[in-house]
Amino acid sequence: MTRFNQPLSGNEMPRFAGPNSFMRLPSVDRPDGLDVAVIGVPMDIGTSWRSGTRFGPKAIRAESAMLRPYNMGTGAAPFEALQVADLGDVAINTFDLKDSIRRIEAFYDTLGQTKPLTLGGDHTLTLPILRSLAKRHGPVGLIHIDAHADINDHMFGEQIAHGTPFRRAYEEGLIVADRTWQIGLRGTGYGADDFQIARDWGFHVRPVEGLWHRSLAPLSIEINKQMGQGPVYITYDIDSLDPAYAPGTGTPEIAGLTPPQALELIRGLSGLDIIGADVVEVSPPYDTSGNTALLGANIAYELLCLFQSSGQAD
Amino acid sequence: MTRFNQPLSGNEMPRFAGPNSFMRLPSVDRPDGLDVAVIGVPMDIGTSWRSGTRFGPKAIRAESAMLRPYNMGTGAAPFEALQVADLGDVAINTFDLKDSIRRIEAFYDTLGQTKPLTLGGDHTLTLPILRSLAKRHGPVGLIHIDAHADINDHMFGEQIAHGTPFRRAYEEGLIVADRTWQIGLRGTGYGADDFQIARDWGFHVRPVEGLWHRSLAPLSIEINKQMGQGPVYITYDIDSLDPAYAPGTGTPEIAGLTPPQALELIRGLSGLDIIGADVVEVSPPYDTSGNTALLGANIAYELLCLFQSSGQAD
Amino acid sequence: MTRFNQPLSGNEMPRFAGPNSFMRLPSVDRPDGLDVAVIGVPMDIGTSWRSGTRFGPKAIRAESAMLRPYNMGTGAAPFEALQVADLGDVAINTFDLKDSIRRIEAFYDTLGQTKPLTLGGDHTLTLPILRSLAKRHGPVGLIHIDAHADINDHMFGEQIAHGTPFRRAYEEGLIVADRTWQIGLRGTGYGADDFQIARDWGFHVRPVEGLWHRSLAPLSIEINKQMGQGPVYITYDIDSLDPAYAPGTGTPEIAGLTPPQALELIRGLSGLDIIGADVVEVSPPYDTSGNTALLGANIAYELLCLFQSSGQAD
Amino acid sequence: MTRFNQPLSGNEMPRFAGPNSFMRLPSVDRPDGLDVAVIGVPMDIGTSWRSGTRFGPKAIRAESAMLRPYNMGTGAAPFEALQVADLGDVAINTFDLKDSIRRIEAFYDTLGQTKPLTLGGDHTLTLPILRSLAKRHGPVGLIHIDAHADINDHMFGEQIAHGTPFRRAYEEGLIVADRTWQIGLRGTGYGADDFQIARDWGFHVRPVEGLWHRSLAPLSIEINKQMGQGPVYITYDIDSLDPAYAPGTGTPEIAGLTPPQALELIRGLSGLDIIGADVVEVSPPYDTSGNTALLGANIAYELLCLFQSSGQAD
Amino acid sequence: MTRFNQPLSGNEMPRFAGPNSFMRLPSVDRPDGLDVAVIGVPMDIGTSWRSGTRFGPKAIRAESAMLRPYNMGTGAAPFEALQVADLGDVAINTFDLKDSIRRIEAFYDTLGQTKPLTLGGDHTLTLPILRSLAKRHGPVGLIHIDAHADINDHMFGEQIAHGTPFRRAYEEGLIVADRTWQIGLRGTGYGADDFQIARDWGFHVRPVEGLWHRSLAPLSIEINKQMGQGPVYITYDIDSLDPAYAPGTGTPEIAGLTPPQALELIRGLSGLDIIGADVVEVSPPYDTSGNTALLGANIAYELLCLFQSSGQAD
Amino acid sequence: MTRFNQPLSGNEMPRFAGPNSFMRLPSVDRPDGLDVAVIGVPMDIGTSWRSGTRFGPKAIRAESAMLRPYNMGTGAAPFEALQVADLGDVAINTFDLKDSIRRIEAFYDTLGQTKPLTLGGDHTLTLPILRSLAKRHGPVGLIHIDAHADINDHMFGEQIAHGTPFRRAYEEGLIVADRTWQIGLRGTGYGADDFQIARDWGFHVRPVEGLWHRSLAPLSIEINKQMGQGPVYITYDIDSLDPAYAPGTGTPEIAGLTPPQALELIRGLSGLDIIGADVVEVSPPYDTSGNTALLGANIAYELLCLFQSSGQAD
Repeated sequence: MTRFNQPLSGNEMPRFAGPNSFMRLPSVDRPDGLDVAVIGVPMDIGTSWRSGTRFGPKAIRAESAMLRPYNMGTGAAPFEALQVADLGDVAINTFDLKDSIRRIEAFYDTLGQTKPLTLGGDHTLTLPILRSLAKRHGPVGLIHIDAHADINDHMFGEQIAHGTPFRRAYEEGLIVADRTWQIGLRGTGYGADDFQIARDWGFHVRPVEGLWHRSLAPLSIEINKQMGQGPVYITYDIDSLDPAYAPGTGTPEIAGLTPPQALELIRGLSGLDIIGADVVEVSPPYDTSGNTALLGANIAYELLCLFQSSGQAD
Repeated sequence: MTRFNQPLSGNEMPRFAGPNSFMRLPSVDRPDGLDVAVIGVPMDIGTSWRSGTRFGPKAIRAESAMLRPYNMGTGAAPFEALQVADLGDVAINTFDLKDSIRRIEAFYDTLGQTKPLTLGGDHTLTLPILRSLAKRHGPVGLIHIDAHADINDHMFGEQIAHGTPFRRAYEEGLIVADRTWQIGLRGTGYGADDFQIARDWGFHVRPVEGLWHRSLAPLSIEINKQMGQGPVYITYDIDSLDPAYAPGTGTPEIAGLTPPQALELIRGLSGLDIIGADVVEVSPPYDTSGNTALLGANIAYELLCLFQSSGQAD
Repeated sequence: MTRFNQPLSGNEMPRFAGPNSFMRLPSVDRPDGLDVAVIGVPMDIGTSWRSGTRFGPKAIRAESAMLRPYNMGTGAAPFEALQVADLGDVAINTFDLKDSIRRIEAFYDTLGQTKPLTLGGDHTLTLPILRSLAKRHGPVGLIHIDAHADINDHMFGEQIAHGTPFRRAYEEGLIVADRTWQIGLRGTGYGADDFQIARDWGFHVRPVEGLWHRSLAPLSIEINKQMGQGPVYITYDIDSLDPAYAPGTGTPEIAGLTPPQALELIRGLSGLDIIGADVVEVSPPYDTSGNTALLGANIAYELLCLFQSSGQAD
Repeated sequence: MTRFNQPLSGNEMPRFAGPNSFMRLPSVDRPDGLDVAVIGVPMDIGTSWRSGTRFGPKAIRAESAMLRPYNMGTGAAPFEALQVADLGDVAINTFDLKDSIRRIEAFYDTLGQTKPLTLGGDHTLTLPILRSLAKRHGPVGLIHIDAHADINDHMFGEQIAHGTPFRRAYEEGLIVADRTWQIGLRGTGYGADDFQIARDWGFHVRPVEGLWHRSLAPLSIEINKQMGQGPVYITYDIDSLDPAYAPGTGTPEIAGLTPPQALELIRGLSGLDIIGADVVEVSPPYDTSGNTALLGANIAYELLCLFQSSGQAD
Repeated sequence: MTRFNQPLSGNEMPRFAGPNSFMRLPSVDRPDGLDVAVIGVPMDIGTSWRSGTRFGPKAIRAESAMLRPYNMGTGAAPFEALQVADLGDVAINTFDLKDSIRRIEAFYDTLGQTKPLTLGGDHTLTLPILRSLAKRHGPVGLIHIDAHADINDHMFGEQIAHGTPFRRAYEEGLIVADRTWQIGLRGTGYGADDFQIARDWGFHVRPVEGLWHRSLAPLSIEINKQMGQGPVYITYDIDSLDPAYAPGTGTPEIAGLTPPQALELIRGLSGLDIIGADVVEVSPPYDTSGNTALLGANIAYELLCLFQSSGQAD
Repeated sequence: MTRFNQPLSGNEMPRFAGPNSFMRLPSVDRPDGLDVAVIGVPMDIGTSWRSGTRFGPKAIRAESAMLRPYNMGTGAAPFEALQVADLGDVAINTFDLKDSIRRIEAFYDTLGQTKPLTLGGDHTLTLPILRSLAKRHGPVGLIHIDAHADINDHMFGEQIAHGTPFRRAYEEGLIVADRTWQIGLRGTGYGADDFQIARDWGFHVRPVEGLWHRSLAPLSIEINKQMGQGPVYITYDIDSLDPAYAPGTGTPEIAGLTPPQALELIRGLSGLDIIGADVVEVSPPYDTSGNTALLGANIAYELLCLFQSSGQAD
């Protein structure tokens, strides 16, 4: 019916069977010919509290078996317009964080025109992805949904860790400061002005207190309009959600976003020029129900739908 | 003090002790003399993703031990007006879905005037209950709260499965299409028009996107008014709730209803002529906290309170 | 940099290491010189359904290791204004509830001017704390956030249990009735007028039905204003929260408060003369994710910030 | 086919359905006419480390649904020779250990000739049972399988707790010292001579070190011969087993007995005049697999088979 | 280095990454050219107590990622002598057991000379495999390791279920009675002579009581010698193991085999003409640690090593 | 009564309360005056499969609260002869494995005459400890109980990881090859001669196959005799035990040792000149029952008793 890869249907093979690729799409070894490649970065050595995100990509793929091709909330039909496949995992070096960062960047350097949809893995991984993408696209706009700003100068003396990527990205000119949004920030901090620093750089910072009890559709429209033309990267940290929804994560913070808010936020970004996206910090050992990975799978799917609208604008 | 069966009090026997019947009510072998019979249908062979709902009735009963007789939110006092008992479980044939469907129908055919409050069990079970009730009442109004429409024509080639009961019920004339409501639908689908089909039949379909961030009391009033006189059946699929609240279910979908919304929805249906109700898809193996079964027990209790108001109108 | 005790920093010792004191603060044996003492009351023999709260203080402390010193939501900096330490646990007699109550009261009698921030433990423990504090302060105002009113006259014939402390406190004159607030009540009850009794005494009772879908900041302002001058005690039962957020508790009730509401409620109480506070009913065996203890730790931290504002008014 | 109560068959009702009585036997309110009554004592307020045994009887009954009537290892057929039913739970006072002890004794005083098979509950419960049985039978022989000797003089100053029952039983003359066996003792202690005390009283003490890597059939023959005629009570603490088999218990000790050893030990006691037996210390909240309760159910069944042989000798 | 497929090495891709095929071997769509095909049969609708084995194949594959190519206990090197690949899952019809049985048989009919190593799935699946293999090989010898004999005439009136396959196989002439061994049987039964029936047919039956506390190497030599020439099928039910080792299974029975015994038993069968083998009844929802699936993966690997020795004899 | 530090008694403070130090011993900041220091090394970044051992020290300490001072199996009374305290955790750099190795070595360099009893943490940590101890003692004898030889030349190209420490120790001359024992090795390997390499160096290697079904007391006597005079270090990897006993570990291997064997092995080493010992690879996120940490605590205690006998020989 279509020339595009399709997820394996539950009417052909029971959902609890079949391959463990994302949405049971075909697995491929090379990105050639793909509009979007789903890539796992199974890393947890950048985490500061609980580990376990090394199993995140595997768990997100497992739960993605329940996803069907059409988005009932938006009408999106990504598999009617995009060639998508699962490109497997980056072979990180789990014994050396700095080497892993180099390996990730090198892997993404090979993607050519294929856009990456990444399943993580701890948040350190977004830095090398941005480094790679900036080579092709120049500084990009960034939509960063997270409980934490991840703009520490260092953690335990280290420049590279899961709490520092966006300071590095800012310093290295990988992102455009006034096209950078941070949404859902909250919790406790090392200084009273922790969130102010990013504001001073030009970031748009939206702590969670201003987002409780309401639809995020208006905010998403605001972001969409502000971002306008130009390349955009979306990084979705699963800990932006309240731990009730996403217990399986490394550094949970209470009083977070809700899944409806996450969907409103993502769906409202339709039409932007998305050049890549990730879902990070899914830690299955702390995810006794599978709910966190299920959220990861759904959010990855919703991000995929954005590539579709983005693709249409090409 | 009353001629009606009462739940065993925690001041008489600690709540963690005593029988495992619903709310520690008396267990009976026959429906005679009962206004409402609580019935378990311990089935999971109609499920397409995770199994485990065969243990749903047992787990709901276990958590129901904490329920006290009075509804503090509404003032309802079901045990002052209704004779209620636990009629035990239907002896389904766990090796044959089609035979189980026949057995369920036959069991409900013996109820006479007693109204069934069913604890499930996968959603396939609602079809034979409707078949039985339609013999006594003719086509009924249906209030269906669920993440899924369950109106597939078939699943893996089969006409009977947990994703098909309401197409079958519609085709067989068991329900009145324009007195049928589907609330909370969401997720991904096999076709962009999956929800439109039911609308075309005359169903009132309310996807979850229109229900986020708000009270469902107005919707409930709308339903109540629209249903008016005539018999009504309520089927409550626990997966209508967000998986954070109800992780123990077979086919969880993110971004669902909240328990306050569920209570608002049910409580607003007071006064309708409820001829039966069920709570389905509680799967305890995926319910590490017991929360899902606790929700099942509370929802069953709230449905029981509706029978009271319904009984008063008799 | 400051003369006050500071939490051990994650840049000095990884958060998953170091002592198990609250926020990795210093542990002390005596309250001398402290503004606030964090105290554990590891008790569960007052519970009526699930036990396990005896491990509550230990689990709350474990999760508190992730808390940093500054409150990003309010700007509060408790460790710049208060001398805080962990005073360890009360040596309750786990084989005798009545003796434990005496032991708790005796322990709190030794605190002098140090204000207690208590980690529980089942709710019975608030009665002896109030008995002790009333000796120093006279009858106090009480802000009681909970799913249950805890004003039973007895449970299974006993006057002392986790469902009775606030009737006892009222009868004994430990609290000022019209300066007593009960927030979040819900569920099923033994009589239709269970909540009316407290209203008749003068308590301000806010069942959860009136709190759904909205910010609690206005309510908190109302309470703050009504309480005015005079000593106030805050008792936070973790089961006030919906079980999705706080599954690890002894008597969960569906359809509860959300963590944003909890924070709004607590933060709005700034400026009151807080003479003590507790977080109770955290039961780790039912807390598979650690989320409940994490909430307990955060709520304890937010309560600590209130002591700061309270301290400033001294 | 037989005049005796039979367990509900899995061919009549699926095993995951039906009542929650022991082995799905009939539930009765009075002991009249029974050879053996299965009784739950849902208590955990005598425990010193983890609680949760209050849910032990309920969980043992739930797992017992998988037991079929015939003992394939021994050929025993208890339901061809004994009238057995489930007599429900003792209404202990969960807020007062001493009152609970009195209530248990009073309950067992009503049994007449019916022999009790008790499901616990913490080990404190064996003391009041022995007090009751000694009234009818005089001092009894005791076979005590456990990781702990439970002969402390006191715990935290209390004479009644789960670590003291067998010192009390000895002091009160409820048991015959040289017809008392303690099997499986191990772990750490408060004094180097902790096990010697009981030996000095005349108890036969077998620490676990002498039992590793071998069949316990010879030991069981030795016990059987030594006990000879006269009434015998068997108390089986589930923590006698290694925690790998029985994680769901309050005070686990490593390097314990194995289930084959437990079966050898119990089966070898055939022919003794068993006047009562119990299985205690099953704590379901720590039993994620259900294995501990399954062991409890099987051990209770094997003990029941002993009543049969005992009954035949009457 | 070798012309045979090799498992993906942990030095090439971290073990927590990469494909979810058995031992991270290549996945193939057709059996052509394979000596051994690993096949999943994700079924649980033949189970009588707990369900969940539908996820067994996926979980076994996940845990198999930790297996390295060489067997350190025996020196076996299966990937130096056999072409092995993962052939994926049989598309069973999860809504119809009888149809699933037909589908399994049809799938195995396509294998040609490739020998199947099956990952289950409930034990019903062995019947259609035997039906298929008997077409090629005639009646086969059977080595059946299990807690249960699985020779019921029917379950709940059904001829096909997980408790009946070996009576059916016997009746249909698929197996040679006096070349059939049943090892590890135990538990409770419906009749005192349940195990005698199979003995009367000619089966060699070894209940577990005769196997406790000893090496099974002698038994394995005995079986090996008795089987002699001629085709042999091995069916390994994970519930043969004690539930402490394998909690994740549908019908656990206490006092089972140990993993060393399982390895001794399998390793001793070297040299037989193995024409197929399976590992069944792994139910991941009851497997909180992953141990059961890990055992399943190791046993499948050990069975694979037998194919090697078998292959060498070709 | 004694001049030595004593564990806090359960009669003074309930076991579920009090500090989280090892056995509730005093916590100290410096090793001065201590015979033995208990030290945590909370590291998991050297692991190759599952992570989570960073929480090992905290969990072992938590379970150690149940340990009483006397060893009932051996009569040992370590707190009557040794000054023991908890020295807290090494501040490893969780973002850099190589730096962590340096930090560990530096920490142990400060111990002086105090002997370290280490709680881990992944097995990489033993290398820097040996490096430090060899400075004081020269090459030491090593008793290494483990499922894995940990003598890989590299993992994923890295020389430092949890699979390489004992090749490094051998190459660096930290251990005496013919005074090195490796006990419990098993599983699958990268080459058929994986275990032969160490034998060629002079190590005494005992794969698990030779240890099944028997007491390890004879082996322990053999080791004790062979080791004779001279310093000995004991490293106990919890994965030497079967995963049924110790599910909470990073790289579980089936068919391992049993706890009785572990105790026999350790207890038989009495009298050797133990200069340090560790218990490693306890990974609490995979330890749902707490059993693994409980084993870790008990093994640490048994190792402590060896220091006592060792101390007496000084």
